Amino acid sequence: MSATATFIDGLRYDENGLIPAIAQQHDTGEVLMMAWMNRASIQATLEGGRVVYWSRSRQSLWRKGDSSGQIQRLVELRADCDQDCLLLLVDQIGPACHTGRRSCFYTALRDDSPKIIADVLISPEKLYQK
Amino acid sequence: MSATATFIDGLRYDENGLIPAIAQQHDTGEVLMMAWMNRASIQATLEGGRVVYWSRSRQSLWRKGDSSGQIQRLVELRADCDQDCLLLLVDQIGPACHTGRRSCFYTALRDDSPKIIADVLISPEKLYQK
Repeated sequence: MSATATFIDGLRYDENGLIPAIAQQHDTGEVLMMAWMNRASIQATLEGGRVVYWSRSRQSLWRKGDSSGQIQRLVELRADCDQDCLLLLVDQIGPACHTGRRSCFYTALRDDSPKIIADVLISPEKLYQK
Repeated sequence: MSATATFIDGLRYDENGLIPAIAQQHDTGEVLMMAWMNRASIQATLEGGRVVYWSRSRQSLWRKGDSSGQIQRLVELRADCDQDCLLLLVDQIGPACHTGRRSCFYTALRDDSPKIIADVLISPEKLYQK
């Protein structure tokens, strides 16, 4: 077994075979999104160089950007000390969020109230019309 | 109900009442760790200004830094588009990781092999001797 296969095998998946993955823009440090991966999506990501998640709602592989065109190129995959969370350093084309915003984390609690702190870059209608 | 209470109530917790929380150093952008929170830990974090997680292994509130001294001050709490993940902008004193490293994500897959890419800042023996 290759070192990579052993690494993937040694990760700690939850009872559904999933592990959370944080996507961070590699050069700016911006945290873009959090989604879930399974063994197959990790392998597909490492083989293809484009990030592939596991969609819990669709119960299928989710090649990020297939419907929106906003792909994530993998720069580096890291695991945490407990091997139960991944950090993906990525190069994100355009918005990572399905709302058309760069990051999914656009709601901030400020002055005791949730505030929208990021603008829509591309409207969801344009993102998903193709 | 205050806007903050409504916000906390509107988050999407899993079947155990938990939501994943990513801690990011507010000024450098470094992703430090991922852990879990429940309603009580979010409330305690917002009230005290120090990050409090929920420890799944100990099944109790985990005031980050109580045993190691390496506390996390909350700078801003953000939620993602689906309200099922939190991003905590924090000011982390010293190492965030129980191994004594700054970040828990110190294992990187490079050249088809996992590599340790961060040094231990304070040995675990020193961190937990008090």
